[in-house]
Order: sequence, then C-alpha cells, then structure tokens
Amino acid sequence: MFKKRLENFSNYTTPQIECLVKADANENLLELPEELKNIILDTLKNSMFDLRFYPEINSQPLKEALARFYSLKSENFIVGNGSDQIIQLIIQACCEENDQIFFLYPSFTMYRITADLFGVGSCFFDITPHWEIDVEKVIDKIRVNERIKVIFIDTPNNPTGIVWSTENLKAVVEAFPSKLVVIDNAYGEYSNIDYIEFARRYNNTIIIKTFSKIGFAGIRCGYGIANENIIKNLHKVKPPYNVNVLTQHIAIKVLENFEKLKNNIQLIKDERDKMIQKLKEYYFVIRSEANFVTVVDEYADKIFEYLIANKILVKKFEVGEKKLLRITLGKPQDNDIIIENLIRFKKENAKDGSKSG
Amino acid sequence: MFKKRLENFSNYTTPQIECLVKADANENLLELPEELKNIILDTLKNSMFDLRFYPEINSQPLKEALARFYSLKSENFIVGNGSDQIIQLIIQACCEENDQIFFLYPSFTMYRITADLFGVGSCFFDITPHWEIDVEKVIDKIRVNERIKVIFIDTPNNPTGIVWSTENLKAVVEAFPSKLVVIDNAYGEYSNIDYIEFARRYNNTIIIKTFSKIGFAGIRCGYGIANENIIKNLHKVKPPYNVNVLTQHIAIKVLENFEKLKNNIQLIKDERDKMIQKLKEYYFVIRSEANFVTVVDEYADKIFEYLIANKILVKKFEVGEKKLLRITLGKPQDNDIIIENLIRFKKENAKDGSKSG
Repeated sequence: MFKKRLENFSNYTTPQIECLVKADANENLLELPEELKNIILDTLKNSMFDLRFYPEINSQPLKEALARFYSLKSENFIVGNGSDQIIQLIIQACCEENDQIFFLYPSFTMYRITADLFGVGSCFFDITPHWEIDVEKVIDKIRVNERIKVIFIDTPNNPTGIVWSTENLKAVVEAFPSKLVVIDNAYGEYSNIDYIEFARRYNNTIIIKTFSKIGFAGIRCGYGIANENIIKNLHKVKPPYNVNVLTQHIAIKVLENFEKLKNNIQLIKDERDKMIQKLKEYYFVIRSEANFVTVVDEYADKIFEYLIANKILVKKFEVGEKKLLRITLGKPQDNDIIIENLIRFKKENAKDGSKSG
Repeated sequence: MFKKRLENFSNYTTPQIECLVKADANENLLELPEELKNIILDTLKNSMFDLRFYPEINSQPLKEALARFYSLKSENFIVGNGSDQIIQLIIQACCEENDQIFFLYPSFTMYRITADLFGVGSCFFDITPHWEIDVEKVIDKIRVNERIKVIFIDTPNNPTGIVWSTENLKAVVEAFPSKLVVIDNAYGEYSNIDYIEFARRYNNTIIIKTFSKIGFAGIRCGYGIANENIIKNLHKVKPPYNVNVLTQHIAIKVLENFEKLKNNIQLIKDERDKMIQKLKEYYFVIRSEANFVTVVDEYADKIFEYLIANKILVKKFEVGEKKLLRITLGKPQDNDIIIENLIRFKKENAKDGSKSG
C-alpha cells in the first residue's frame, strides 16, 4: 500500500524532557514588550470573525506588509507554513528524483530530510576541520557535480552560528548562474550582515527568513524573497491556503511593529557575546552570529547528561567525529545558570576536559 | 533552474469579487454561539505565552482530544495544515511517479491537482450521466488498472453533495485490500451516514475530516482517521511542526464543545432541504447531503453573471458537457435572497430555461 522507499523513513518526535531552562530549539523566549503583546492580542480578538472564512489563498496582505518592510514588491515574496515549507517548495520546484542539493556539513537538517523525502540526493562540504568556509573548495566541489540543482547556504549556519561574507556568497552565486542559491537567513536578525541585495540583484538567489527565531515559533511563518520569476515558479507548487488567518494577521502586526522587538534582539546578542567570552576559557566555542552558542567538546554526551541532571536542556549534535552542544540564548538569569553549570562541569572534570575543537 | 514539468503548472489565485452574499466556498458563515466564541477567545488569550515556542511537533494533545471525541486512540490520527495536507501526504506516501489515483468525476479538485504536482496520474469514473454511483462499474474500472494505488471517495461528494452508502463503500474497500481507500468526509457533519466504523474495521481505509466546513476554515486544520499502521506511515512524510499552536488550541476547544455547534449544523441542513424544495420546481437540483446545493443548468454561465450582478457569489463548474452552480448555504436571509434571484432568473428567461440535468 505504501511506496517502497518509505521503509527507510522514520517518524520524527521530540523527546519530552522536563527542564527548567529550555535552550534547545533556538526560540526567542524573552517576554514580548507589553505594547506589542497588546497589539497582537487585539489582532487575535479582531480575527475571531474571520475564523469562518478560508484565509487569503497566497497570503497577499502579508506579502504587501513584507514589501513595505523590505522596500520591495509583493511579487518578490512567497509565504510558507514555516520556512520548512519554503525549503520543501524549492526542492519540489527545482529537483527531479536523482538530482542533488548541496549544503554545508553541518547545516540545518531539514535540507537533507526534505531531499530524502523527495528522492533527491545530497552533496555536502565538510566544515568540521576548522569550522570555517573555504569558498574556493566549495565552488570546486559544486562544479564537478552536474546533478546539483540547488545550493543551500544557511548563514548564520545552524548549528555553528558562523556566517558567510557577502563576497564569498557572491562568488558562489556568480559561479553557478543556472543553479538556485538559497540563502537561509533564519538567524539574520542576530548577525550584522544584510543579504537583501542578493534578492534584488541576482536571478538565481532566494533568501529565506522566518518569524520563528524572533519570538514567534508558534505561529509557523516563514517566507522567501527573490525576483518575480523565481517567486512565480515556487507558487506553482505551493498548496493553496497554506497559511492560516491568525498567523497571517500576527505576522503583519509584527512587521509593522518590528522596532518594538529590537531590544529583545539586542539583549540576546549581548548575552551571546557574554556567554562566548565566559565559556571560551574552558571550551572550544565557535564564533556564532546567531541566537545560540555552540561548543565543541569530546565529552559533549557527559556534559549533556550533566545539564539534564540540572534541568537544563540544550541540543546535542554528532557531526562526523566531532560532538557539539548548541545552547540557545534565553533570559539573562537562565544564560547565567547554563554558564555556571558548564564551568562547574569543567572544573569537576579538570583532568579529562582539555579544550578541543 | 526549475524542473521541466513545472512549465505545465499555473498559479492558483481566487478572483476578488465584491459580493453581499458569499456562497462560493462551502464555509459555515453562521455566527458562533456566544459561549463558544468566549471559550475560543479565552484560548487565544491564554496562547499568547506559547507563541514563542514551536508547536507540538505532531499535534499530540489535539490527537488526544480527537481520540476522546471518537472513542479511538491517539495513534489513530494524523493532523494536517488543512485536509489538503492529508491528501498530499497520502499521495506522497503511496504513489511513485507514474502510479495513479482514482476518483469520481466530478469530485474535490485537490485530488487531481495534488497528483499532478507529484507526477502521479489520475483515473476517474464519470457520474455526470445520472449523478449517481454505479458501484459495480466503479469496481470494474479500478480492477483493470493496476497502476491505481489510492482510491479517493468524497462522500458527501464535492461539488454534487451525493453520498455513498456504507454497503457500496464496503464493496469497494473489500474488493481492493491492497489499495488505500480514502473516505473524504469533509462534509460529514451535514449528512446522516457515519463511516467511522471503516477506520476501526479495515486495514486499507482512511477517513479524512476537517474543521473548515463547520465554521473554522480560517484555522486550516484537517485530520485523518485510520489504523495505527497507516497513520504511522503517513507520519513518515509529514513535515514536523505542521500545525501552528493557535490552530491546535482552537481545534481542541471546538472538539470539547462540539455540542455547541449542533444548532448551526442543523440550521444549515434545514436550510438546504428548504432550498432544494423551492428550487426543484425550476431547476434540476442534485440531492445534496452537504452544506451546499448544486443545480445543473445549461444556462449556468448566464445565471452566474446574473447572480454576480446582484452581488451574489456562488461557484461555477464545468463538468464535461454539464454546467453546475454550487451554492453554499448560509444565513437564512442570504439563502432566501439566492432562492429569490434564481427563481426570478428562470421566470425572466422562461422560454430558454427548461429544466435539464
């Protein structure tokens, strides 16, 4: 009854771990400013009447709000049920079975998972030896593989937080004019590099962004920014009515009141820099420009368990032979608890725990 | 950059037609009872805190509410971003490219649209000659086509409103134990037939339902009911976090307070029977058990324009050589306006407008 390939797939679930400090999913857990909270609550109240109607089929009013926000046209946007859906639409629109996508290793796992789902292959470039991007080697690796149709570049990268310079990114985009380069900028609000110019300038680039990392993971709203031709083609594979009415309304209000989020974003950036500063004496810490800090440590499993025992939940990654702990920044008092625990672990395990990346 | 097959696809948009009476999309536009409205509003208020977190990855609490509602287990449910997503997951899980799906002609257009999207073929059985289902011929047609992997049966059917008896449905389900039979029961609340037993009894059946037709089209929530094995396999192709937190919370409250919707549902059924009664003197009216009434008329285009001129929006279908107008039941005063206009049209066009189906 089910197709053969399905046998290799498994169900995704998330473990339910009781914790006091949740630092595993890169949400922004700071309180919203009261004023913004009230605006959103009003929006929800005013949306009650609209629950009975199908939402706008292609999120047109939200696209118009995005156009105002970025000084572009509504035809430059596609809105998804989370940026996960934009990733899926890109693979659906560009790749036949047996084509390939390219990404860094490690990077956001949904690229590979989605490619697998559609029988599309994966080709990657390993950044673990030095945790930095050698753009010439990346280009060489893509050049010799004609099956690659889409190049996914998450910058800031997940789970490391490292970013691509616009120069390096331009080199890739210009080297492959017939491949689609996806600039996944989910964590963009926490870095200082702005890639919007790529959507204006290049015919083979799409930028992906999301509301998930700035306090609204629950609404599931992501979007793509690109030239009209790319956007038009992606809409051909987009299911109608893919974004519900409440999400559309909230997203519009968040864009219109974005400056009210700026303190929350700046606080996380400051907390990140503080955490990096404090931990780097004890750990190999990757230079993150996202809302998380990632340490590389051969004892990551032990540390993870130690944190769990202290009711702290972070995210653990095995990347080749390297082991990573990705720690989402949260409220300052929570960040301090994490820092204390991580330093205490190292002190208690001084003999084993030499710094290694 | 885009795959070749995409050239054949087009963008879906809905025409923006200004109307006073909206009867085109099978929503339930009656006012919610005050008590239920307040419950939902409270839920939205209480969800404000949760906007920052990713929603439950597989809508587990909603599945538990569904399990209580239907006296089944949570493992019998999969929740989608609208039932459109359940249709997509079924096709993704069961069909390779060049496999086929089967459906009645006409039926819900998303079956064919979704199949096309995945390079899956379509095979259909034409019900237009008599607007009824000849189950033996349906079975014969499916039997000779081994490429058919999934049989979609919408009952009540969209756009006709006709239903399958449980006997006929059993005949199909039992004739093809290795094909998945999808019972799309989106309009089930408006008919008197209950198919839940099929999900309990058969290993090759899934029932699809939605909140869209009972007053909540805006939240985009649909679900499938089937045995654990089918549900487990569909979850393998389901994107994580596919249903946002507000939709999950509202859907749970609607299920817990379902009896508060019963008056709205009964009123629509009564209004439907009234409309059929009044129109059948002038039109060929199909015997609908859904929240809409469908008339077959060779002058459907003219009637549609006539209604538009009077600010009434219905949905027009061309089905082979037949022309249909599907009229969603709404508030009694709106239904009366539609009836008056349709009768007036016939009287004004008495010479042309002989009854034909």
